[in-house]
Amino acid sequence: MKIIDFRLRPPAKGFLDTLMYNAGERRDGFTRTVGFEPSPAAQQQSMEMLLREMDEADVAHGVVVGRLAGMLGSISNEDVLSLMQEYGPRFLGAASIDPTDRRKAIQTIDEAMAAGFKLINIEPGAYPVPMLADDRRLYPIYAHCEDRGIPIILMVGGTAGPDLSYSNPINTDRVLADFPSLKVVAAHGAWPWVNEILHVAFRRPNLYLSPDMYFSRMPGWEEYVKAADGFLSDRMLYASSFPFCPVKGYRDWFETLPIRPENREKIMWGNAARLLDLPDPASAAQRVEALAS
Amino acid sequence: MKIIDFRLRPPAKGFLDTLMYNAGERRDGFTRTVGFEPSPAAQQQSMEMLLREMDEADVAHGVVVGRLAGMLGSISNEDVLSLMQEYGPRFLGAASIDPTDRRKAIQTIDEAMAAGFKLINIEPGAYPVPMLADDRRLYPIYAHCEDRGIPIILMVGGTAGPDLSYSNPINTDRVLADFPSLKVVAAHGAWPWVNEILHVAFRRPNLYLSPDMYFSRMPGWEEYVKAADGFLSDRMLYASSFPFCPVKGYRDWFETLPIRPENREKIMWGNAARLLDLPDPASAAQRVEALAS
Amino acid sequence: MKIIDFRLRPPAKGFLDTLMYNAGERRDGFTRTVGFEPSPAAQQQSMEMLLREMDEADVAHGVVVGRLAGMLGSISNEDVLSLMQEYGPRFLGAASIDPTDRRKAIQTIDEAMAAGFKLINIEPGAYPVPMLADDRRLYPIYAHCEDRGIPIILMVGGTAGPDLSYSNPINTDRVLADFPSLKVVAAHGAWPWVNEILHVAFRRPNLYLSPDMYFSRMPGWEEYVKAADGFLSDRMLYASSFPFCPVKGYRDWFETLPIRPENREKIMWGNAARLLDLPDPASAAQRVEALAS
Repeated sequence: MKIIDFRLRPPAKGFLDTLMYNAGERRDGFTRTVGFEPSPAAQQQSMEMLLREMDEADVAHGVVVGRLAGMLGSISNEDVLSLMQEYGPRFLGAASIDPTDRRKAIQTIDEAMAAGFKLINIEPGAYPVPMLADDRRLYPIYAHCEDRGIPIILMVGGTAGPDLSYSNPINTDRVLADFPSLKVVAAHGAWPWVNEILHVAFRRPNLYLSPDMYFSRMPGWEEYVKAADGFLSDRMLYASSFPFCPVKGYRDWFETLPIRPENREKIMWGNAARLLDLPDPASAAQRVEALAS
Repeated sequence: MKIIDFRLRPPAKGFLDTLMYNAGERRDGFTRTVGFEPSPAAQQQSMEMLLREMDEADVAHGVVVGRLAGMLGSISNEDVLSLMQEYGPRFLGAASIDPTDRRKAIQTIDEAMAAGFKLINIEPGAYPVPMLADDRRLYPIYAHCEDRGIPIILMVGGTAGPDLSYSNPINTDRVLADFPSLKVVAAHGAWPWVNEILHVAFRRPNLYLSPDMYFSRMPGWEEYVKAADGFLSDRMLYASSFPFCPVKGYRDWFETLPIRPENREKIMWGNAARLLDLPDPASAAQRVEALAS
Repeated sequence: MKIIDFRLRPPAKGFLDTLMYNAGERRDGFTRTVGFEPSPAAQQQSMEMLLREMDEADVAHGVVVGRLAGMLGSISNEDVLSLMQEYGPRFLGAASIDPTDRRKAIQTIDEAMAAGFKLINIEPGAYPVPMLADDRRLYPIYAHCEDRGIPIILMVGGTAGPDLSYSNPINTDRVLADFPSLKVVAAHGAWPWVNEILHVAFRRPNLYLSPDMYFSRMPGWEEYVKAADGFLSDRMLYASSFPFCPVKGYRDWFETLPIRPENREKIMWGNAARLLDLPDPASAAQRVEALAS
């Protein structure tokens, strides 16, 4: 099985200057809290080891997320692009924008998509001037993406902003209702609002859920698992949040979850491939098989 | 055992023009999502089959809910009344009101109760101009019902309004606090705010909970079950939400839940009978037994 | 093992005039709801019986909480102080303040700490004029306590105020963010917002959680237990909330929970001792042992 890991930050470029790498002990503490041993690739900041770990875990693609942030540290689109250029489709890029200048943001989006980025990353609460997900300033940007069929990642879970209000699913729900054709990936799965975001996902077919590191044994996580094997099997996404979780360890653990194989494959490949419009190797294989029979 | 099903929409009159009947595939998808096979009575829109299914499930009464709504579609009080007239006590009516005209709403309430309706249905978020449960415009109406001992159904769960804020239990809690003698049935059990509404129910003796279709294996549902067999056994209500769940299938499933028989009987009959001031066949039977011994 | 019970209201002084003692049936109903038999010491309002029960349960210290409240009834600092004087370190005092007069509140705090109180009790929603936890009027008081290293109890769970909004963890989170060195004990564990407050606790190292009576089998409680044996083992606190739960019965039950012995000891002693700057009998014993070997 081939896997798409929907949140993976390699030990390279601007990532090395962010807390996830330059505060390694804090990160490893988190990793152990959610039940994993830290990845040596994370600890030794080795691209070579990461690529090997991805191979061992059958991770064909990792979604690499640019970020324009205050406290969390920024990663420029240029950095993400150079990873895309150096490693090819191994890394799929999500471009960040500056929401305080809508014209420039829209230009950034158009240029990024033209350059091969796959989607746009919007982190309302993490901007230097934090916003809620339904902030008016983001609406022209959502409209632009909806009209062009560009999916977005919306970071509205975990430490999404200065306080817990920035992950409130009420604001996310409004965005989904106001832009019904905009495909939205809720990064960090809107944790800790687990039941609430699952209601929103149940109601809004344009929401994809990526609980990533909070999928793993944090309060309420069992409901994510049940939804993954139930009504949300077509819109749940798999993401290790590396370096917070190890690429290989996360996979090994994920496969122990009570999720039926057909749903697991959708979560680990099919849903993301469809969302990002990637060719589906499984259907290609089936086509070959069909021709042969 | 005789059962009162607190939310049951027959395939007749205005109901046939609402999404629950005129979008049958969407409805059947929901039914399967919560783990049931669709009822043939729903699929074939047959009153005769529904009545037979009610018989098989020992459902003596179904609460039929009028609705004045925007997107969800309206069912007039006249339609509900004609069902009450045609089928007698098999269907107990809940009358809807127009909250934008308080004088007319109060007149509607008085006329409906005089005509044999059992309670009033208020759906704040579903009105053409959506409101939160504690909207000022609703307060004269709540006051009128409280003063006359008229119970209300308050739809504040599931798809209660344009977004998730319309089911927020904070607003419901304020209504319960401001009208402590008003008996309020929270339709759809304020799902997905499960822990929160259970706190409110724990605190406010005037709240009854009807999680109905969200009782059934949706995120957080186990807490409803535990409360039903615990502190909320006197105020939990049974409701299939037909046609979303099958009348008979829902009953068969409900009886597999870890709820003690004495509590199950209260939930399926006693609590609703007390709330609606119906004669209690069990106590009548006990009286006969007591006389005989 | 020695235990610190972080919420214990003796049957004496002003406590006898509050609902928890003068509405004994209501209290006993609660006790049974959460699965315990009422303590005879509570029912007979006997200090002697309480002290014996504390002995039997190895409760070395009980934190006694003063309160300035509207509906819930007040307990003056004088009353708490006289218990501290009569019974010595058996009872550790938390002093209450009047938040409507910041100068007087700060004077109260300074005098209380000088008199031997261990911390300050702030109940935003229970004041005669209810406040949210992040009310501006409380900020000078939080600042004063933070600057002097004085921990506070913040009642932001259960029946924290006139409605459910007063326990909203969003407001609590803001206080923790704005005063990062202020040690805050969330009394009643912010119940029913279980997942949400656990997120806050995960993020904010200055939050201590005392779910006390809501720890015991109320909706969502299993997540408290898992956190107690996981990422929150250093900041979970043990509290019977006597007279709502029996001192001895609560302990017997607590020890059946799936919490490893080393974490249980932290929760029942170490975390509270560190927070209140008490000598640690275990480390004293270890020191003796070390000297002897």
